[in-house]
Amino acid sequence: MAPSGIITLLSDFGLRDAFVGIMKGVALGVCPSARLVDLTHAVPPQAVSLGALLLRSAVPYFPAGTVHLAVVDPGVGSARDAVVVTTARGFLVGPDNGLLAPAAALLRAQAIHRLTPTAYVPRPVSATFHGRDVFAPAAAHLAAGISPEALGEPVASLAPLALAEATVDATGGVRGEVVYVDHFGNLVTNIPAPALRAFRDSAVSVRIGGMSVAPLHRTYADVAPGALLALIDSWDVLEIAVRDGSAAQILRAGIGAPVHVTGG
Amino acid sequence: MAPSGIITLLSDFGLRDAFVGIMKGVALGVCPSARLVDLTHAVPPQAVSLGALLLRSAVPYFPAGTVHLAVVDPGVGSARDAVVVTTARGFLVGPDNGLLAPAAALLRAQAIHRLTPTAYVPRPVSATFHGRDVFAPAAAHLAAGISPEALGEPVASLAPLALAEATVDATGGVRGEVVYVDHFGNLVTNIPAPALRAFRDSAVSVRIGGMSVAPLHRTYADVAPGALLALIDSWDVLEIAVRDGSAAQILRAGIGAPVHVTGG
Amino acid sequence: MAPSGIITLLSDFGLRDAFVGIMKGVALGVCPSARLVDLTHAVPPQAVSLGALLLRSAVPYFPAGTVHLAVVDPGVGSARDAVVVTTARGFLVGPDNGLLAPAAALLRAQAIHRLTPTAYVPRPVSATFHGRDVFAPAAAHLAAGISPEALGEPVASLAPLALAEATVDATGGVRGEVVYVDHFGNLVTNIPAPALRAFRDSAVSVRIGGMSVAPLHRTYADVAPGALLALIDSWDVLEIAVRDGSAAQILRAGIGAPVHVTGG
Repeated sequence: MAPSGIITLLSDFGLRDAFVGIMKGVALGVCPSARLVDLTHAVPPQAVSLGALLLRSAVPYFPAGTVHLAVVDPGVGSARDAVVVTTARGFLVGPDNGLLAPAAALLRAQAIHRLTPTAYVPRPVSATFHGRDVFAPAAAHLAAGISPEALGEPVASLAPLALAEATVDATGGVRGEVVYVDHFGNLVTNIPAPALRAFRDSAVSVRIGGMSVAPLHRTYADVAPGALLALIDSWDVLEIAVRDGSAAQILRAGIGAPVHVTGG
Repeated sequence: MAPSGIITLLSDFGLRDAFVGIMKGVALGVCPSARLVDLTHAVPPQAVSLGALLLRSAVPYFPAGTVHLAVVDPGVGSARDAVVVTTARGFLVGPDNGLLAPAAALLRAQAIHRLTPTAYVPRPVSATFHGRDVFAPAAAHLAAGISPEALGEPVASLAPLALAEATVDATGGVRGEVVYVDHFGNLVTNIPAPALRAFRDSAVSVRIGGMSVAPLHRTYADVAPGALLALIDSWDVLEIAVRDGSAAQILRAGIGAPVHVTGG
Repeated sequence: MAPSGIITLLSDFGLRDAFVGIMKGVALGVCPSARLVDLTHAVPPQAVSLGALLLRSAVPYFPAGTVHLAVVDPGVGSARDAVVVTTARGFLVGPDNGLLAPAAALLRAQAIHRLTPTAYVPRPVSATFHGRDVFAPAAAHLAAGISPEALGEPVASLAPLALAEATVDATGGVRGEVVYVDHFGNLVTNIPAPALRAFRDSAVSVRIGGMSVAPLHRTYADVAPGALLALIDSWDVLEIAVRDGSAAQILRAGIGAPVHVTGG
């Protein structure tokens, strides 16, 4: 697969410090033609699962041959591996702590390599900033066309990530939970659109926090400003939202809030 | 007009989620050589007028042939149009809800096209994220040299935006209001520099929130730290500021606060 | 020195307004092939010393020939000079108020030029936004290969910056202070790693805010979640941290907090 030259970056580093800029400087030193695109650096500190969901939500929209560099790494400097995942669409680079697993599954991982000290990526200088010393140079070498085989040794599988999954209950209802609250206060659930195909949209009823929301709408502007609604969102999952407002604030609901969908 | 290859991005998406990165991935898929520059993604949610002012403040400083992609879009998925505005300086792409109108006026719009499903920009995949499905691909095709005619059909005019405008009162004073509070707490008004040309700088007196600020200074460092001052700012409008401090906090003033200027 | 084509940007402008985007538009107008990399724009308003520390922390990681544009400029429009510092590794551009001094010392400044109005960078349009009118065009001309001599006249030295420095006390202990609190709440001190070489790591004891932290660890994951630790961080200085937590919150300590290190 020819590299696209694009490297995306996702981390919990925030934008207050210069950590993200430093990773980019290192990457451009290795691959001067790399195109650098931030996914987000506002993953809450050490929140591996949230980072994994955000990464998975973004990777399908990049050209084939893109390198996705992700660092949410509470175990930096410990025994956890640093890995490259090769997929049909491009590469994932980061710590092997579950962060890459959902994106790797979505993009159909073909191979996994554990990063070892090589001429390309030497032994890390620090025990605290592998984004700078390991992941950025590895990602940049991949963007420059170096193969993952040259960066480490093959391993059989990634560390898994336990994500809450929606289930169908005895009466045919679907039970899930809120897994992400976006910038607008929209409540993103783990209930995928296909799980609701058995129901007619007009008959779907969503229960969350003691409220019942029905039917399933197509977009925010289908309801009056301030009204609560349920819809399939851009992640292709069930979302509970308030038009021109914050469902998280109005429902006082957040990550982990149970959601129950019935068909009428 | 030859495209500059630059695409700017402005939105109310924030930087916590991956929405902005996703738009960039889509744009680079269409136009791999595009240069992507963020204007801001911190427009308050659904604040079309503020987004319009920020967009207008930035567009004059980009090379000819730049594509400005702006998404503050409470009506996403509803009947509002998606448009491309062609100007002598470049293109504006976004929802036709007033967001583009001030920048279009400043850059002297020459043509407006309503985006329709075409081979370039197919029918949107989602009803909630036209930034990804419509605006980013349209902007990228323009950056790649596709003409606006190929993306839709001509329309006569943009939806207007009602912006508060400064007025001259019976005694020759100028009445306006605060329209933006910047990161430093500076109070940006809608009183353009030319409206004050009738006054001598030394005689200008600005009333806001019961305070009187005089005369008109040239820059922040003209007064002592902590002192209030009035000046013509980088938007070329009247601004009320505090040196090394926040006028918004000290005056407890914000958007909509009345401002009255007299000539002495 | 051949330019790398990279321009980094650091400021106290924040990302809410369009100021950073405007500087980039101006830079790309001058040097269309420039690669723009943000270091940070979240330097607290007018905090020249913090900006200087962040700039110094980042510059070593960029390719030779990079131009570093830094604007924390409470004296904009006043008599302070605008300067270009030429180093063996690249250029620094910004106000001569101390902001550039630590990075210039680290990169071994070879020449300093005061920016004067020239055909390349004319007299500034505004008295309040030299980032747009002076620093961005100067940086872009340097990135395009124009020599600093063409942008102004040589001066002998930079305005200095008084930074608190660690000292060795009568009993051989090292006294310093917290100089930066990062996004994770880690307390970065001004005690450089070499100052601790006289001590065995296992014997190092760090006193801060009435707490004693010992020994010196290698990385965050060396201690249990929630535990306090001291380590040498990616700035190569002593840092006090909490694994998966915020040392700043737990110790209620911030910039200026005294730190005392003894050898056992």
